[in-house]
Amino acid sequence: MESVIKKIVIIGSGNVATRLAMEFNRIGLEIVQIAGRTKNNTKELANKLKVPFTTSFDEITKNADLYVLSISDDALFNFKFSVGDKLVVHTSGTTPMSVLNGYSNYGVFYPLQTFSKEKSVSFDNVPICLEASSEKSLEILKDLASLLSKNIMEVNSEQRRILHVGAVFVNNFTNHLYHIADEILKDFDLPFEILKPLIEETVTKLKNHKPDEVQTGPAKRNDQKIIQNHLSILDDYPEYQKIYRLLSEQIKNKYHKDE
Amino acid sequence: MESVIKKIVIIGSGNVATRLAMEFNRIGLEIVQIAGRTKNNTKELANKLKVPFTTSFDEITKNADLYVLSISDDALFNFKFSVGDKLVVHTSGTTPMSVLNGYSNYGVFYPLQTFSKEKSVSFDNVPICLEASSEKSLEILKDLASLLSKNIMEVNSEQRRILHVGAVFVNNFTNHLYHIADEILKDFDLPFEILKPLIEETVTKLKNHKPDEVQTGPAKRNDQKIIQNHLSILDDYPEYQKIYRLLSEQIKNKYHKDE
Repeated sequence: MESVIKKIVIIGSGNVATRLAMEFNRIGLEIVQIAGRTKNNTKELANKLKVPFTTSFDEITKNADLYVLSISDDALFNFKFSVGDKLVVHTSGTTPMSVLNGYSNYGVFYPLQTFSKEKSVSFDNVPICLEASSEKSLEILKDLASLLSKNIMEVNSEQRRILHVGAVFVNNFTNHLYHIADEILKDFDLPFEILKPLIEETVTKLKNHKPDEVQTGPAKRNDQKIIQNHLSILDDYPEYQKIYRLLSEQIKNKYHKDE
Repeated sequence: MESVIKKIVIIGSGNVATRLAMEFNRIGLEIVQIAGRTKNNTKELANKLKVPFTTSFDEITKNADLYVLSISDDALFNFKFSVGDKLVVHTSGTTPMSVLNGYSNYGVFYPLQTFSKEKSVSFDNVPICLEASSEKSLEILKDLASLLSKNIMEVNSEQRRILHVGAVFVNNFTNHLYHIADEILKDFDLPFEILKPLIEETVTKLKNHKPDEVQTGPAKRNDQKIIQNHLSILDDYPEYQKIYRLLSEQIKNKYHKDE
């Protein structure tokens, strides 16, 4: 498939900006410039790609087909620059497309994945959620996205923010739970690796089951003896104890409604 | 490797009892009896294995080499039966081995995995955490465990309950977060499948990184605009809103200590 997008300016230098820029570059599109407020990060990304950068948004080149705004949601609401009728997209899960309605042609290009600057990731199955101000712009974005992934979806702004909330639960919060286990085990000289077969099985079960069909554990069984025992271990971790108490209570209430 | 354990009685009929009994049976050991208080569950497991069962603990056969107690921790403290010098083990993560010190030979056989009655699981990499009242009993349990898994560890009662707490965080609580995302997405006609590449990548990242090295998301960035937006979506899910608020606060505090 061909894309009418050949030249791209990336505005931002965070995790999403970095992974998207490197992926566009990898598949042969031209990143013509990186623009960002923080000089070190912007320069670092530009150097990786061997392309020019600017920290002044007035100096963003007009010579591109697509402008990708991967900046914080706060910054999105304040950002303004002039690009005529060129296509402008943001990559935010939560900010509505309408934040860009000062431009002629605009849209959203939201890859539903967790990105780290230092870790490459295959885009092959990453859901890319698209929205655009016109049918024409949507087609352009679909052609572009299909170069990156087999998993392209048209998603409106309301659905996208629901997906983003879901992503926070299954990735950000889950990863924090992994961190908690890592920290507690380390304090007792136990390697986190012991838990990895369990972590993998937790995900494997989702292939054929809804999560609430495969819930297990002391809260699910309402085994108060274990729950109290665990809470007493967590006396030394008051913040983690709060999480244990809240989540156990919710799981117990879900499966023991009538008790 | 040979095991001196040939004949096994399983006491209990829950998830762990079921998976262990079926795995012992699969590798050619003889399950001679299933014992349990709840007739339906006990009978169901016995029927699966085509072996006798009893709901009266007085009728547990003396004719076995190993007695595996897979019953609730509450029940463990009250359970008593007479087996002479036969080996008795429990499978609990949290209950100390000493609960069995009324027996002559005893130990713990704790498979660190999430088990569901209806879903088979490969034991190949499941960490099997062993503890025993004597060196001889420990060797017997090691020989038995090595028939099931390559991943055998000697773990004392204190370490085991730390591992169990860790398991609750990375499995039970994580699975509940998956359920929350599933429920919210369903309410907006979005399939949970969209989140699966993200869920898988969250685990894949652990191969080469500690969880706190790859934390991402609005709380990590302290993007209050998104956090407030998500909290407002969750006005309709007050219990899930509490989880969102608590976990976001902890993540923010961890990465923005000085702000």
